[in-house]
Amino acid sequence: MADYEILTPETVRSYIDRTPSLAGIVDTATLDVHEVGDGNLNLVFVCSDADGKGVCLKQSLPYVRLVGESWPLTPKRILAEARGLSAGARYAPGLVPEYYGVDDRTHVLAMENLRGWGMLRGELNEGHAYPGVDTQLGEYVAKVAFNTSYFAVEQNDLKAMVAEAVNPELCRITEDLVFTEPYVDVPNNSFVDELSPEVAALRADARLRAEVGMLKWAFMTQAEVLVHGDLHTGSVMVRDADNGPECRVIDPEFCYYGPVGFDLGALVGNILAARARAAVLDRPAPFQEWLAQAGPAIWDAFEAEMRRLWPSRLDPTWTDGLLDAWLAKVAVDTVGFAGAKANRRIIGLAKVTDIEQLPPTEHVAAATIVLRTASRWIRDRAALRTVTAANEVFDEVRDEVLG
Amino acid sequence: MADYEILTPETVRSYIDRTPSLAGIVDTATLDVHEVGDGNLNLVFVCSDADGKGVCLKQSLPYVRLVGESWPLTPKRILAEARGLSAGARYAPGLVPEYYGVDDRTHVLAMENLRGWGMLRGELNEGHAYPGVDTQLGEYVAKVAFNTSYFAVEQNDLKAMVAEAVNPELCRITEDLVFTEPYVDVPNNSFVDELSPEVAALRADARLRAEVGMLKWAFMTQAEVLVHGDLHTGSVMVRDADNGPECRVIDPEFCYYGPVGFDLGALVGNILAARARAAVLDRPAPFQEWLAQAGPAIWDAFEAEMRRLWPSRLDPTWTDGLLDAWLAKVAVDTVGFAGAKANRRIIGLAKVTDIEQLPPTEHVAAATIVLRTASRWIRDRAALRTVTAANEVFDEVRDEVLG
Repeated sequence: MADYEILTPETVRSYIDRTPSLAGIVDTATLDVHEVGDGNLNLVFVCSDADGKGVCLKQSLPYVRLVGESWPLTPKRILAEARGLSAGARYAPGLVPEYYGVDDRTHVLAMENLRGWGMLRGELNEGHAYPGVDTQLGEYVAKVAFNTSYFAVEQNDLKAMVAEAVNPELCRITEDLVFTEPYVDVPNNSFVDELSPEVAALRADARLRAEVGMLKWAFMTQAEVLVHGDLHTGSVMVRDADNGPECRVIDPEFCYYGPVGFDLGALVGNILAARARAAVLDRPAPFQEWLAQAGPAIWDAFEAEMRRLWPSRLDPTWTDGLLDAWLAKVAVDTVGFAGAKANRRIIGLAKVTDIEQLPPTEHVAAATIVLRTASRWIRDRAALRTVTAANEVFDEVRDEVLG
Repeated sequence: MADYEILTPETVRSYIDRTPSLAGIVDTATLDVHEVGDGNLNLVFVCSDADGKGVCLKQSLPYVRLVGESWPLTPKRILAEARGLSAGARYAPGLVPEYYGVDDRTHVLAMENLRGWGMLRGELNEGHAYPGVDTQLGEYVAKVAFNTSYFAVEQNDLKAMVAEAVNPELCRITEDLVFTEPYVDVPNNSFVDELSPEVAALRADARLRAEVGMLKWAFMTQAEVLVHGDLHTGSVMVRDADNGPECRVIDPEFCYYGPVGFDLGALVGNILAARARAAVLDRPAPFQEWLAQAGPAIWDAFEAEMRRLWPSRLDPTWTDGLLDAWLAKVAVDTVGFAGAKANRRIIGLAKVTDIEQLPPTEHVAAATIVLRTASRWIRDRAALRTVTAANEVFDEVRDEVLG
């Protein structure tokens, strides 16, 4: 049970009135409040006043909302989210919601209200392309990565940031759900019978198991940059603005110092699910073509932004050749993590609507495409070397599965 | 200036009498005290009483002893040394001095007196082989590595240990002196004129510079195990005991959570210097043959001990194949770090007697062998893959240099 006040739509107004840091953001006298937390973990209150001003309050509960009080989870995760969100606001303004602060007593975080925005996953499920959002996502990862890394932060300060940003409980969820459980028989897993042969083959693949283990080891030990930690397409809000599609990255409560390829891989792995869905539904060619270039476009934007920031690095003895070698390492990591993030969405506890909300035949086909592609990414990432080469594996596997 | 009591040979007796944790270890009435700190950083008091009992007190100063008060350095490094020494005493008993505790007020650490033992570097310089010590060193690294890693420590506990073990000031010395300064023109460097073409070639090698940068990145970001951090042949005490040669690993004040290959590489890189010295002095074949197998023997013992400990890992979902992949990664790291540790000893601030105390012609030849071999290790480590393959590069380079 919580030992702090749990907000309800009815108590949000008085909470805002009582909280000095939220003074003046909205007019509580005319405030409209909706609880919209459709995620697995938290309460989310979207608030708008009669003047059209808004605020979004997110409150963490002392357990996993999806499961209930039987799965306790530290509410201090909201501080990790605050850390991730404020880093995004500082280094990639305009690509995350505006951040208004966090209350570590009630575990409430206040940020810009994104009312009217859609979730990228849902939009992709409906067949809507968002040209330019791919590029924005690559830029977001690069801006936060560069500015929270040794390339931009004094060594002493960074060591302190790494220690401050440890997030063991949330990292543990990733370690278990992404890197361990899909490859062994545990009750958290589920999949339709038709996928049993695919899953059995994957679990029997010693090389694949070893490489997933190496990715887990990297996730657990490589404190490179402040990663978002859960950067799937459900953590990206989108809308069509006057000057084109735009996005906001949300929900960085899994943030910690980890390998930058983990964030890029989360994006690429979830685009794999979207591509599989689009393929089995035979979506119009322009949409599928946009999706096909989205993974490489994210990478290209990431690389371009890193190269743009590079001249401002603290230590000029890091050579240009080091950046090339570093990008090559991150690309291999990205391909591997993308595979790990995709497989878990088919086999493990937390599924994705891209694949789950398909008719039975299409579901099996799409899931098979994802599992086979993702497993090749994990196993062959060093040989594949680039997101573009990895992307081509999808085409081969799709043709193999769909004939 | 220190704001705590700095010990002298004259005040050590009363210090021991005043310190409860040291009661009874020695008889101070008959104590003989010698200050023997020939290192760069600290005071070391070797104490023996009339009954033959002894203790060694090590006190850190608030600056680098080699340079003086103009280079301040936290005396809290003695706590890092205590952390490394107590981990060694716990997981590799008999391979480190017995540990009697640390006083964080006076920055004095008390440990077993190794009077009568020799330093491995000095013994190798004299042409004395220590069969079996190579194997013991590989075992030491494996025992501490396994038991301080995720293979043996609960995730939550390990995150706390990583944070506790941060050692930024000492790591900074390594980052600068090992990975940065040798490759650029800074006043800390020095070498005889005859080596200028070798050094110029190395600094002009963009691929080498990039790969050294990647090793530095790994050193700064990969928190794999509690590494010793300065495991050269001057950190290894040896003696011929009744049942054969034995060793004690000392001086872990650079210890922190880092890549395990850094410790193995320090050993292999310093054996490279010893091999080069032995080759130019044309030492007897049995000694050179023992040195030639020492690097691979260290690795083999490390691998064997890791495999012996493997069944006791906490999480059985780490597969046997993961251990193979992990060892392959560590081997590549080891070869690279060995190269970085060897190059710095020729060009950078802290030299080694193996090479420095050679007649001029032999000095240039030995230094050239080290630089060329080490640079190939750094550059080609992924292709070399094993310590054994790296070791063969030495033979090629030696023949090339000595004709």
